[in-house]
Amino acid sequence: MSEPIKPWARVASKVLNDLRIMKVQEVTAISPKTGNAHGFFVLDTVDWVNVLPITPDQEVVFVRQYRHGSDALSLEIPGGMVDPGEDSKTAAARELLEETGYVSQQWTYLGAVEPNPAYHNNLCHHWLAEDVHKADSQDLGDGESIAMQFMTQDEVRTNVLNGELKHSLALSALSRVFPIWPIPYRQEDPDVKE
Amino acid sequence: MSEPIKPWARVASKVLNDLRIMKVQEVTAISPKTGNAHGFFVLDTVDWVNVLPITPDQEVVFVRQYRHGSDALSLEIPGGMVDPGEDSKTAAARELLEETGYVSQQWTYLGAVEPNPAYHNNLCHHWLAEDVHKADSQDLGDGESIAMQFMTQDEVRTNVLNGELKHSLALSALSRVFPIWPIPYRQEDPDVKE
Repeated sequence: MSEPIKPWARVASKVLNDLRIMKVQEVTAISPKTGNAHGFFVLDTVDWVNVLPITPDQEVVFVRQYRHGSDALSLEIPGGMVDPGEDSKTAAARELLEETGYVSQQWTYLGAVEPNPAYHNNLCHHWLAEDVHKADSQDLGDGESIAMQFMTQDEVRTNVLNGELKHSLALSALSRVFPIWPIPYRQEDPDVKE
Repeated sequence: MSEPIKPWARVASKVLNDLRIMKVQEVTAISPKTGNAHGFFVLDTVDWVNVLPITPDQEVVFVRQYRHGSDALSLEIPGGMVDPGEDSKTAAARELLEETGYVSQQWTYLGAVEPNPAYHNNLCHHWLAEDVHKADSQDLGDGESIAMQFMTQDEVRTNVLNGELKHSLALSALSRVFPIWPIPYRQEDPDVKE
């Protein structure tokens, strides 16, 4: 084993930008190794949640929507931000209802992951919602469009293999419920020019 | 099926902040549904890479380091940013060498994921490096400390279940090489107060 790793001591922090969805902070922290101060950027972010909805026919309910980060249509499972004062299960049920109009009485917690501890300070909670059924219409924001898509487990695997389904946090939830790729998984090296 | 989903048209973009690790952009885009313009924040980010190093004894090489986002020690696999002009395999080999001093002659591409298409425009590429061996000492930046930790597959699963290993992109790579949790995976609801 190498030397024990110690945390840095954060001594200052200021908000550079409030992006609504997260705050860009510049923090100053002292290296435990050298005692020197360094500056770092941190994205102060509320917890996220996503939900894997399964119908009585064992199909997964996906949502397809335009995403401004990738500037492309994205295949995902329902999800979003945990609002202040909400617990993650309430947020999961709210996002499922808003994005699909579906509800469930059968919720199972699948654990949480850190989306990226290098920059973010938040968790993404994964919930499984079984026996979902339609209770309402979608409740979308101004200009928002979300298409629903139902897939069998085989269709999920096809969409993983063909690269259509590549949202890391959707894959994270899915991979806890059923096998979604052959293991070990191999792809052609994208950088090799034959 | 719902109505077909169309992309928004991005009509303007300006950099609010260059964080070195990413650029905070404010983009203006036109809703295909309403024709109205809305503003969104996008994190313009280079591709990332991480690498799953396996020793001749079938142990996985992890790195443990302090992360400023989570303000905590983090258990991960080696990885980082793909530098300009680099391909992802070269970046994976460079990060492995810098963070651990290890090299491999046996590289397999495990595919790529979108870390978060809502905000980011980048991919994280996963590489498997088998039969790794020590070739050099670590090559770390000023004040940087990285401890190495070797784990069997059983130890990996223990660290997933006890919540020690929760970096979404490390789990994404690991889950493509061997089963890392019981399926279906269940945890206690964190919000239920008994």
